[in-house]
Amino acid sequence: MSREVIEFYLSPCQRPFGGFSREYEKAKYVLLGVPYDSTSSYRPGTRFAPPKIREVSGELETFDVDLGLDYDDLMVSDVGDLSIVHDVRKLTERIRRVVGRIVLDGKVPIIMGGEHTVTLGGVQGVEEARSDLLCVVLDAHADMRDEYPTGEKFTHATVGRRIVDVLGAERVVMACVRALSREEHEYIVANDLRVLYMCGRDVSLELRELVRGREVYLSVDMDVLDPGIAPGVGNPEPGGLSFQELLRLVGDVILGSSGIAGVDVVEVNPLFDCGDVTSVYAAKLIMELILYVESRRSSRA
Amino acid sequence: MSREVIEFYLSPCQRPFGGFSREYEKAKYVLLGVPYDSTSSYRPGTRFAPPKIREVSGELETFDVDLGLDYDDLMVSDVGDLSIVHDVRKLTERIRRVVGRIVLDGKVPIIMGGEHTVTLGGVQGVEEARSDLLCVVLDAHADMRDEYPTGEKFTHATVGRRIVDVLGAERVVMACVRALSREEHEYIVANDLRVLYMCGRDVSLELRELVRGREVYLSVDMDVLDPGIAPGVGNPEPGGLSFQELLRLVGDVILGSSGIAGVDVVEVNPLFDCGDVTSVYAAKLIMELILYVESRRSSRA
Amino acid sequence: MSREVIEFYLSPCQRPFGGFSREYEKAKYVLLGVPYDSTSSYRPGTRFAPPKIREVSGELETFDVDLGLDYDDLMVSDVGDLSIVHDVRKLTERIRRVVGRIVLDGKVPIIMGGEHTVTLGGVQGVEEARSDLLCVVLDAHADMRDEYPTGEKFTHATVGRRIVDVLGAERVVMACVRALSREEHEYIVANDLRVLYMCGRDVSLELRELVRGREVYLSVDMDVLDPGIAPGVGNPEPGGLSFQELLRLVGDVILGSSGIAGVDVVEVNPLFDCGDVTSVYAAKLIMELILYVESRRSSRA
Amino acid sequence: MSREVIEFYLSPCQRPFGGFSREYEKAKYVLLGVPYDSTSSYRPGTRFAPPKIREVSGELETFDVDLGLDYDDLMVSDVGDLSIVHDVRKLTERIRRVVGRIVLDGKVPIIMGGEHTVTLGGVQGVEEARSDLLCVVLDAHADMRDEYPTGEKFTHATVGRRIVDVLGAERVVMACVRALSREEHEYIVANDLRVLYMCGRDVSLELRELVRGREVYLSVDMDVLDPGIAPGVGNPEPGGLSFQELLRLVGDVILGSSGIAGVDVVEVNPLFDCGDVTSVYAAKLIMELILYVESRRSSRA
Amino acid sequence: MSREVIEFYLSPCQRPFGGFSREYEKAKYVLLGVPYDSTSSYRPGTRFAPPKIREVSGELETFDVDLGLDYDDLMVSDVGDLSIVHDVRKLTERIRRVVGRIVLDGKVPIIMGGEHTVTLGGVQGVEEARSDLLCVVLDAHADMRDEYPTGEKFTHATVGRRIVDVLGAERVVMACVRALSREEHEYIVANDLRVLYMCGRDVSLELRELVRGREVYLSVDMDVLDPGIAPGVGNPEPGGLSFQELLRLVGDVILGSSGIAGVDVVEVNPLFDCGDVTSVYAAKLIMELILYVESRRSSRA
Amino acid sequence: MSREVIEFYLSPCQRPFGGFSREYEKAKYVLLGVPYDSTSSYRPGTRFAPPKIREVSGELETFDVDLGLDYDDLMVSDVGDLSIVHDVRKLTERIRRVVGRIVLDGKVPIIMGGEHTVTLGGVQGVEEARSDLLCVVLDAHADMRDEYPTGEKFTHATVGRRIVDVLGAERVVMACVRALSREEHEYIVANDLRVLYMCGRDVSLELRELVRGREVYLSVDMDVLDPGIAPGVGNPEPGGLSFQELLRLVGDVILGSSGIAGVDVVEVNPLFDCGDVTSVYAAKLIMELILYVESRRSSRA
Repeated sequence: MSREVIEFYLSPCQRPFGGFSREYEKAKYVLLGVPYDSTSSYRPGTRFAPPKIREVSGELETFDVDLGLDYDDLMVSDVGDLSIVHDVRKLTERIRRVVGRIVLDGKVPIIMGGEHTVTLGGVQGVEEARSDLLCVVLDAHADMRDEYPTGEKFTHATVGRRIVDVLGAERVVMACVRALSREEHEYIVANDLRVLYMCGRDVSLELRELVRGREVYLSVDMDVLDPGIAPGVGNPEPGGLSFQELLRLVGDVILGSSGIAGVDVVEVNPLFDCGDVTSVYAAKLIMELILYVESRRSSRA
Repeated sequence: MSREVIEFYLSPCQRPFGGFSREYEKAKYVLLGVPYDSTSSYRPGTRFAPPKIREVSGELETFDVDLGLDYDDLMVSDVGDLSIVHDVRKLTERIRRVVGRIVLDGKVPIIMGGEHTVTLGGVQGVEEARSDLLCVVLDAHADMRDEYPTGEKFTHATVGRRIVDVLGAERVVMACVRALSREEHEYIVANDLRVLYMCGRDVSLELRELVRGREVYLSVDMDVLDPGIAPGVGNPEPGGLSFQELLRLVGDVILGSSGIAGVDVVEVNPLFDCGDVTSVYAAKLIMELILYVESRRSSRA
Repeated sequence: MSREVIEFYLSPCQRPFGGFSREYEKAKYVLLGVPYDSTSSYRPGTRFAPPKIREVSGELETFDVDLGLDYDDLMVSDVGDLSIVHDVRKLTERIRRVVGRIVLDGKVPIIMGGEHTVTLGGVQGVEEARSDLLCVVLDAHADMRDEYPTGEKFTHATVGRRIVDVLGAERVVMACVRALSREEHEYIVANDLRVLYMCGRDVSLELRELVRGREVYLSVDMDVLDPGIAPGVGNPEPGGLSFQELLRLVGDVILGSSGIAGVDVVEVNPLFDCGDVTSVYAAKLIMELILYVESRRSSRA
Repeated sequence: MSREVIEFYLSPCQRPFGGFSREYEKAKYVLLGVPYDSTSSYRPGTRFAPPKIREVSGELETFDVDLGLDYDDLMVSDVGDLSIVHDVRKLTERIRRVVGRIVLDGKVPIIMGGEHTVTLGGVQGVEEARSDLLCVVLDAHADMRDEYPTGEKFTHATVGRRIVDVLGAERVVMACVRALSREEHEYIVANDLRVLYMCGRDVSLELRELVRGREVYLSVDMDVLDPGIAPGVGNPEPGGLSFQELLRLVGDVILGSSGIAGVDVVEVNPLFDCGDVTSVYAAKLIMELILYVESRRSSRA
Repeated sequence: MSREVIEFYLSPCQRPFGGFSREYEKAKYVLLGVPYDSTSSYRPGTRFAPPKIREVSGELETFDVDLGLDYDDLMVSDVGDLSIVHDVRKLTERIRRVVGRIVLDGKVPIIMGGEHTVTLGGVQGVEEARSDLLCVVLDAHADMRDEYPTGEKFTHATVGRRIVDVLGAERVVMACVRALSREEHEYIVANDLRVLYMCGRDVSLELRELVRGREVYLSVDMDVLDPGIAPGVGNPEPGGLSFQELLRLVGDVILGSSGIAGVDVVEVNPLFDCGDVTSVYAAKLIMELILYVESRRSSRA
Repeated sequence: MSREVIEFYLSPCQRPFGGFSREYEKAKYVLLGVPYDSTSSYRPGTRFAPPKIREVSGELETFDVDLGLDYDDLMVSDVGDLSIVHDVRKLTERIRRVVGRIVLDGKVPIIMGGEHTVTLGGVQGVEEARSDLLCVVLDAHADMRDEYPTGEKFTHATVGRRIVDVLGAERVVMACVRALSREEHEYIVANDLRVLYMCGRDVSLELRELVRGREVYLSVDMDVLDPGIAPGVGNPEPGGLSFQELLRLVGDVILGSSGIAGVDVVEVNPLFDCGDVTSVYAAKLIMELILYVESRRSSRA
């Protein structure tokens, strides 16, 4: 039955991430594109990210010499792109249903955005089956506004707040935030939200502390990288991470947690990129993410 | 009171179209940007058109040697950009109210899109005061779908149909259409809509026939130009007009009608342009449009 | 058995041309990408044309109001891209085999290049089954050098000469040529090759005369368009056709011949394009080409 | 001695125009780059035109099938680029001296701009030896302001007026002008300047009438082409020529005059171009220009 | 009276920096664009920096969580762009007069270039009222040539030397220099100029030592950043700072000095940028600069 | 005789690297462009690197303040670009012959690629005269495949393996490798190849150990830099060096070895670059490389 739900909402992608796709039934990891950017307030174009990330992914080497694992051996199914509606609530509901199905089928969903709004549906879909889920967000922006712009409750700038509405403040951790408004800051303080501001080795230690023994949904907004190296994002904010720093943090979260229940990588915008480098970063991050999760599982087995 | 309505919805633009702006009260023509592209299905970015068109407009010569008129002498007020909501119905309502106010104040509204959806609010705003209005649309696409994508009634691909809903089929004329679906064709035939397919001198004659003695709202989708010369549009469709052919058609409509009640120029997309040339075409078109309307008025006076 | 040959050499495409693909067995037209540009002497990048043309093709309207036909109703199978070897002779042999198989299966092969060299394999594959084939090439360049660069016999600049080697001078027609060397001109004169130089209505009349009663392989080098409207080509040459002129010539060839045995559309280079407009032209051309062939068949039935 | 003057001011180019350069002493035509854009008011970058035009020129076919002449056989020397000073009067003086020397040596100077200001020095350099010279300018703009911006007498927007100061109104012809200010129009009328506004076959006839029996300095501002096909210019102005129309006009001037004493091709701006197409047009124009001049000489010999 | 001087020279901007502008009379900080690049020897285009920096500034968050200050609360007036003359001496004089007026009115002038030449007028304008001023320049290049190119004394490559002419060697400090000629090096040694070569924590310590107790004019050439992250500059020089390193140095200067009398941020070139990232860096730097100055004042109050 | 060999294969470049070129006979260092990219599997365009690197090199300062040396004083001859054949074996043979001649003439050859395949000819040409040569490769990829794609033995992805075939495993050192396949890893382990994986100070120490007392051929693939700062490469691989780190490693190799017998800098791809920054890095690297070699020689003298 699960296939029906998934097929209903997805349009096929014949050249999948990494150059191949396992059958859904046998997969442990399920990749899902959500080419949605309708609430973007500044630079639209994240809709073009899933096909571009897939395209560049085929040129990456798949063997991780440190882990001794080859991505080509893993059971990953790329089920294609969710079909899009402009209405953000309807879209969130579609994501929730498809992601929920993937989780029920015992697989790890990995969403390729689109804008950051897609995280809400992802968290909701996973949370139904994982009642103690901790949501970890790596992001340059707090995304904690209540409305943005005036009167709009569900946008890329409010998605963090909506996740807090769903999970409660104690089940959300944000890291590497370096841009927020006074309103957001007051909300964070008032609700005792755990927001780790920029950055360095301390963040890593603190993150590992927070995820220990917790099952995690991990959301990576690619603008957590410095825009000088990753210009292809919706809202560039100076002063971010290098790719190695990001990879280390992601490894800390995956290896330190008790398990990864879901992942998304969002906000790549190919229209403002150079030489597709931001998409290449995202493709490499997704590949390494899955290798880390596999490695963690293997080492526990 | 009119100023209040207008100020409520608009964000100021300090470097106006053509380099200057008359006071609203004294103006005969009112320019209004609507940087909206939330329903775009293919290439977003028409939100960037109003500032780009204003920027390039400052470099154009303002004297029309044939008409003997100088744009710098005309009474044009650039009131800036409408503030945007993502919800297309709310946006349409805002446009309707502001345009309606401009018409009530005895001025000609000229909208710079944004995507083609903005035409609906423009037509509604003008129509309240001009009950016999004829809407003339120059466009590569028919935009006559009922829903697009599934379930969405108000998008750039359905705007023509929604205008027919408002005005009735006999008060809409489309010209230079060269792309439509079978569904749209059947709707056009069934409703006896006047759609002039591509193109040549006959279109010009027929158009002049149709507008004679009618007050006109003129909507120009810039993809009516061939994409080889005007690549910066939302949906490029091969086989369009040259700029001179477009200018001649526009002149035919303006000089042949009994008056111009409103205008829009839409679907410029600076993100896919080259050397800003599509924006330069749009700026020149707006300037010449206003010069033609002024010339028509002067010659009747 | 035919499927095996075809599958052996083809890698699947991300999305098929026009958004869907019929089963090979039921198809009348077979699309085949050949992303090859290894002999390019000036601007490489035509290898990126097949995926880009497919991408933009999905946004075109499929209904032709003049012919009363809808591309969505036609039996077209997009079998993906040929896998590439750098050696041009081996590549030509692969094309010959796959195209030959398609023709044997009673279908019309349509190649999306890649550089113009791919035409040689296409002609050879078709010619085996169509012994009286006439090859019609629309191209800005004569491509009639014997070697280019020094010592290389099979390149984009010699492909016309190699086709003459295969078919003989009397079975090759070139039209719209506007760039050639003195050496090429002497070869053309000495061999009494039919080369129609630029351009206008006379070319159209002469072409129709030449193709009457002949089965045709049609090769369109997209640099036959003027580079001002179609900059995304390997070797831009000023002074070419408009898209409407090209479409008319293509229609003349298809409707005037006794049948179309094979087609290629080559030399689109997305790396030097603007707003993907050259790819959009190529996609529209391919769609209209197939509609014309279908229309011709229907009218004869 | 002439070599000294020329070498003093020139820096060598990376590759000569057309791929080779004859010795100066034996040359009949002398190409000279002037990479100057310091007075540009809008989009700088014409300084990059000479190397870019040279680069793309090497890919053009050199044989003209109509004239039966091959550019490779002509005696053309590309002496490289003039070294630049920002001060426009000093620069003009340098151009005047170098061009004057070339003319004294019995050769035809051909300047590749740079902005239109370089024409002044070119005209002065030629005029010293050709007292009855007629200056023919093909340009979208009149360039007849007295000062632009305020207080600046020698800029790209005033160069036409400065040429009139030097030659007198009766020795200047402008054609294809489609943009001018009221001030410029009044000046043109007051001084009875011959300005042929846009465009068509009549311009051609009138031009041929005007140049008959006159020795001509020909200046082509590439913005005379429509910006839709030639976006890489300093000041794009909608409504220009196609490349074929331009070539025909240039041929009319060259073949209709009693001789060509000097030429410039100016205002190509590679920074705003697409696929180098404007530079390709300029390279082709220069090649054909020289072929026409040679053909004219041969036919008179 | 001050308003008159300022209005005489300024043209309004399309949108003010940060999205709003205080009245001049109430402002403590005055932003001023100088879109000048006429002496650029390599890549022109810094003239486009002021509007681009303003455009991107509107998308930045304005709250600094470390300082506890919000930019939106500060008294900043963006008075628009100085109108430009090509003559560098006249331009310098204009800058001097406007900046001098701003300082006399008790405000801190902040110049957005434009090329580095604008610093000279800025320093002169401030110096008249601040006789003990120390000029601190962060720059990849020494800019200490006497003439460049030959015979030109006032260009972006000589501006450092001209500032030394005005202030004397003991009142100029350069930091992070990593590119200079031998001639410049000899001049620096001979005059005992304080030039801190690249880079690291020592520079920071030394800088703080040098600015202690001094009132400072701070000039930041954005090419002090590494071109890999900030490609949009006039003269890219490998081996520069990260954005965090730059921000730390700027903070050291501001907080370590006895006061900031004037600031400029120069050499952003949007024409060679990617995703506007260099402009985003400049906008963030300007915002943080003003927040630091405000924070310093508050903490002293 | 040496000149003849060199002239036979080279096409001249009139604006050489760094703005000038010494006579070949007097030179100690010989620069040679090889604009070859025919085996590229992903993004072609490294053929455009030599002219672009030369172009940007002219804007760099030539004085190294640490070494106290000026590049302008060194004896460097830029002999232009090797003329290209598509066949990789023939090309390798050409490189071998020209490089061998340069070495026999007692000079240090410095190749500007082109793709990495050019290293094979470079190593062969040097190795004939330097029998104990150690080849040090800085590269993100191992390039140790046996065939890539299927059946092709000489491509950018197999060049490392072919060098091992020539020199033996003990005379090859790779550093900063961060991408390889399992097949390559197994080959490296089986053959006990010295491959230093990423990265940090340890690599530097180990490299210095390995080069001590050895004469070195140094090959730098520019993708060893992080693609975020150097996007203009053939195969971007996340996680690379900063420019300062690269320069330090290169300095370690040069100063730690017993001599540098040959150098290449490869894989710059201007078509995917931003603001030419990757070419600027390459130009600076080449300049500093030569300054280091010169400095090493002087200090030993």
